[in-house]
Parts: sequence; structure tokens; C-alpha cells
Amino acid sequence: MPHSSESDPHGFKRRGLLFVLSSPSGAGKSTIARKLLAAEAALDMSVSATTRAPRPGEVDGKDYHFVDLERFRAMVADNAFLEWAHVFDHRYGTPRAPVEALLAAGRDVLFDIDWQGAQQLHQIAGGDVVRVFILPPSMEELRQRLVSRATDSVEIINARMARAANEVSHWDSYDYVLVNDDVETCFQQVRTIFHAERLKRSRQTGLIGFIRSMMKTG
Amino acid sequence: MPHSSESDPHGFKRRGLLFVLSSPSGAGKSTIARKLLAAEAALDMSVSATTRAPRPGEVDGKDYHFVDLERFRAMVADNAFLEWAHVFDHRYGTPRAPVEALLAAGRDVLFDIDWQGAQQLHQIAGGDVVRVFILPPSMEELRQRLVSRATDSVEIINARMARAANEVSHWDSYDYVLVNDDVETCFQQVRTIFHAERLKRSRQTGLIGFIRSMMKTG
Repeated sequence: MPHSSESDPHGFKRRGLLFVLSSPSGAGKSTIARKLLAAEAALDMSVSATTRAPRPGEVDGKDYHFVDLERFRAMVADNAFLEWAHVFDHRYGTPRAPVEALLAAGRDVLFDIDWQGAQQLHQIAGGDVVRVFILPPSMEELRQRLVSRATDSVEIINARMARAANEVSHWDSYDYVLVNDDVETCFQQVRTIFHAERLKRSRQTGLIGFIRSMMKTG
Repeated sequence: MPHSSESDPHGFKRRGLLFVLSSPSGAGKSTIARKLLAAEAALDMSVSATTRAPRPGEVDGKDYHFVDLERFRAMVADNAFLEWAHVFDHRYGTPRAPVEALLAAGRDVLFDIDWQGAQQLHQIAGGDVVRVFILPPSMEELRQRLVSRATDSVEIINARMARAANEVSHWDSYDYVLVNDDVETCFQQVRTIFHAERLKRSRQTGLIGFIRSMMKTG
């Protein structure tokens, strides 16, 4: 994938991160993603495309790109997705062009995708991808959170719980696994991981030049 | 290596870290190691054995285990070192037994060793080892720091500078590389790395039980 150039405090370039947050629906991922985006100036969200209808309050182009099935299929045919999948009766995908543009501009990119998406992204982008899984404190607590959102029917909640169990079963394909007992603690852990990953030697592409000039003047 | 059991806030076990800090002499590593040990209750220092004489103020068993050449050779013969090396006219080694005891007790262990030691440790302990390299802001600055310590002759400072250049040339065998412009910033970066590495899925050995019991009750 094309990469560029954001400068760190020392002024050298580094490779951008593809930072994946996954969790069962209701485990608090959206809150944490929102807080992380607010806190990190060099981080942007990847906005997925979906064939499902908008929920009340969702904004096209911000929460999702809402597209019809025909358009989605055309994008698949055009290789316009980095990853895509069927979930229940709908399709979800990560449009390729915006992610490549962000990385080329030296930004980090945040992904709210499931384990299948994380796996596909990792196949494409390897060590540039960091995968974080957020667990609810318990399945009872998760059900409680879904019930108290009051947006879904019992059938949908049951389907979400079955899907949550499936998601959780893939915990071992993630680099980091956190338990969201307390949203502020969990957010700080996510932020710590994000900061540490930015310090990885393999991302500090500008270090080579810094060290070369250091050795010349030593 | 034997591992146990320290509990995290959620009460599950995790594998201990072997956390290596390397840097050229004078780049600020000792200060950062001291601050990290003071801040992290579950972290202990690995005390190296050496055949060199104590410097003023150095305490046997705390700064180093000061041993004679015969004793050092006997320890090598007994396989009592995790790693050891010649540096200038002296030998330095990491005694195996204390490290194994700390890991078995569920502690993390901090190592102040050079790139050769880090490489040997990584060969033994693989992914349990996290290697952090601290660069001085420049070679001029490094020389200045060595001169202002006023403990070494010009010849020794020149030898240290040559050795520093050699150490820096191995920067790409580390997981993380930091520049110590400001000791407090650099310390916070080291601490961030330490905290993030503790959240790695591969170290959270107790997660399996947590997730199993979660799935049963879901």
C-alpha cells in the first residue's frame, strides 16, 4: 500500500498505522473509537460502505456510505474494496481509495471492522495493521447493554448475541485483547497501544536518515 | 523459560515480559531504567555479573555482581548465564537463575544489556523479549555527556564513542527505537511501550479461561 510521510516530533518520517478496533456490538467500541479520534490529531476513520438502511441519526458519508446492492456489487467488481463481507442480510466493505489516500498523506487510519475484515486487511497490509479486540466484561452485561439501547427487537438482540459469541471466538487472531469493564480505562489502554505502536522501529522509516547523518558527524 | 502467574486487574494470569533497554553509554538509559523501576511495581532489574572493578559508589549485588575471572569462567561452564559477552577487557553476563525465579513468580524483568545480549536473549526467549533502543539526540551531544560525567579519561571516552557508533549501527535489531532529546518524554515513551506490551494477546495467558467461562454463561 502507498505510504508517506507524517513527521514526528523529531522531524522524521514514519509509516502510517492501520489500526483496527473490533468487538461484539454493544461492547463499547464506538465510544472508544470516537474518543480516540478526538484525542489523536493524525488519525482518521475509515468509513465503510454498506447496503443496509441508515438507522435514525446516522449520516451518509460519516457513519457509513449507504449504497444499494447494485452499486456495492460494482465496487466489488472494480476491486474498490480493501475487504468486504456479508453480515446478516447486508454487505459491508472498506473502500480502498480513501485509505490509500490517507496513508499516502502520512495519516493513520482507524477501522471499525470485524475479525474477517481484520484478517483480510492483515493479508494485504501485514505489519502495518494493528488489531485490537475489545471484550465486554461478560455476555450478560453485553445483552443488558443491547437491551438498554432499546433500538432492536428481541429477535435482533438474539441474533446479535449469537454473532457476538462468534466474534469472541476469534479473539486469538488479534494482537491485543482488552476487557471493557470501564470505558475510560479501556480507552486509555487503546490509546497506550496506539502510541506504543507508533514508536515501533519498523514504522520509523525516517530513522535511517537520522542515524546516517548522526554517524557522519560522530 | 518457566513462567507463571501475576494477576492483572481482571484477575487473569499473564506471561512475564523480558524488557531490554539498550543504548550507547551516556544516552540516558540508566536514568530511564531507574524511573521505570520506581514507577512499575511488578518490574525487577536483572543484575549483571561483571569482571570489571566497581566504580566509586557502585554496590555489589545492586549495580552488578562483581566477580573475578575464574568465577565468571566457572559460571559460563555451568551454563549459569542467559547471555554473556566481552566488552573491552571485561566480561559481562546475565545470571540465569534470578531471571527464571522472577518470571516463575509472575514478575517482569528489566535488562540493561547491549545488542549482542539482546540478540542472545531473543534466541532463548523469543516473543517474551521486548527490545528498546535509546538513541542520543546526536553524537556530539553524547560526547558532551560523557565529558561532563568527568569519570573517564579522553582515551576511555574515545573508546566509548567508537563503541557507541558500533551499538547505534545495530539499531535495526530492536523492536522500538527512541531518541532521548528529553529524558522525561523518553521515559514516558518507554513506559507507554511497557504498558502496551503487557496488553498483547500472546501474554494474556489467563484470557483463555475468562473467555471460556464467558461463552458458557452467554
